[in-house]
Amino acid sequence: MLNKHDVDYGIYLVTDRKILGRRGLVQSIIEAAQGGATVVQLREKELLTGEFYSVAKRVKEVTDELGIPLIINDRLDIALAVDAAGLHIGQEDMPAKIARKLLGPHKILGVSASSVEEAVLAQQEGADYVGAGAVFATGTKEDISFIGLEGLRKIKQSVAVPVVAIGGINEENLKAVFENGADGAACVSGILGASDIKKAVEKLKNIKRSVK
Amino acid sequence: MLNKHDVDYGIYLVTDRKILGRRGLVQSIIEAAQGGATVVQLREKELLTGEFYSVAKRVKEVTDELGIPLIINDRLDIALAVDAAGLHIGQEDMPAKIARKLLGPHKILGVSASSVEEAVLAQQEGADYVGAGAVFATGTKEDISFIGLEGLRKIKQSVAVPVVAIGGINEENLKAVFENGADGAACVSGILGASDIKKAVEKLKNIKRSVK
Repeated sequence: MLNKHDVDYGIYLVTDRKILGRRGLVQSIIEAAQGGATVVQLREKELLTGEFYSVAKRVKEVTDELGIPLIINDRLDIALAVDAAGLHIGQEDMPAKIARKLLGPHKILGVSASSVEEAVLAQQEGADYVGAGAVFATGTKEDISFIGLEGLRKIKQSVAVPVVAIGGINEENLKAVFENGADGAACVSGILGASDIKKAVEKLKNIKRSVK
Repeated sequence: MLNKHDVDYGIYLVTDRKILGRRGLVQSIIEAAQGGATVVQLREKELLTGEFYSVAKRVKEVTDELGIPLIINDRLDIALAVDAAGLHIGQEDMPAKIARKLLGPHKILGVSASSVEEAVLAQQEGADYVGAGAVFATGTKEDISFIGLEGLRKIKQSVAVPVVAIGGINEENLKAVFENGADGAACVSGILGASDIKKAVEKLKNIKRSVK
């Protein structure tokens, strides 16, 4: 059984169906894990509940085999239905306090924060980690403002829980992300958009190692 | 506390934001309840989770005051988050077996069925009632085939749980719906599209009384 306090948020893959190549979702996750990805967050914004459930169930089998935690974006029903390791919610999703209550104490709850206020509140309401961002410009989410490395550093200083940086992170800026306090780096296109996913993650891991 | 076995499915309102008039969602529900609606199903297909949660929370306060059960369409997370009386799922939503497990024994689980096979399976997997339909043509859902009164009757004969007929039900055909075995009639535009919602529901109630 996963102990949520042992989770390594180091290289945290967030999926995005829109930038999957021909290799598909499951194969991309496998290759990312082979390269050393430590967490997978399944993010599906377009699927019907039944489809999302089927995809999540399949991905859960794979992440279980790979031995890495699966976190579901937004949908607590799916997280519970597939017995995922946890749930990640944004500020537009369910209130963190309610999510914490419904998840129980053992599942991971991650909450997105783009300010110190949101990060502190997320921690108060039971977040196990804070997703801080967007740190840099990104093509994968719309209508977000960027907090920069300074924003990341301030959020890290304001909370005791791990901070996972997200937003436009790639091999060029990863070093700076960890130097500014991130406990983990969440990547979408930085991993899924690579021609060789395994190699891309290995590269990110090596950069991370060079910092800590 | 609601005992789910006491629920009267008689006149069952399903909401649809697209056909709400100027009176809005909450006012429509209040007027329907004043007319005698016995159940409210909140159906929201476009809202983000946080918005859906807020709307459902507000509606739950209202249905609690009115003393009628609130059932959430599709989203088990929202049903749990607002402590709704139950959840209604379609064939495209989460599997009924999983929903039953996650809801626990005390919450209502309704499952849509458009055939005897689906109805029997729904009952086996823990449905407390079956939503049988679409009985007639309707403008509120796309890509569905119609089961007619004969389909309704066959479903009623195949299961022990209450059967709520849905799909194009209005004051013209309501009598036939109950004569063909329905325990309840779910209406969308038949209620929400009325110029006087309270009166429309009263009319439906009177028709129902004339049958049973």
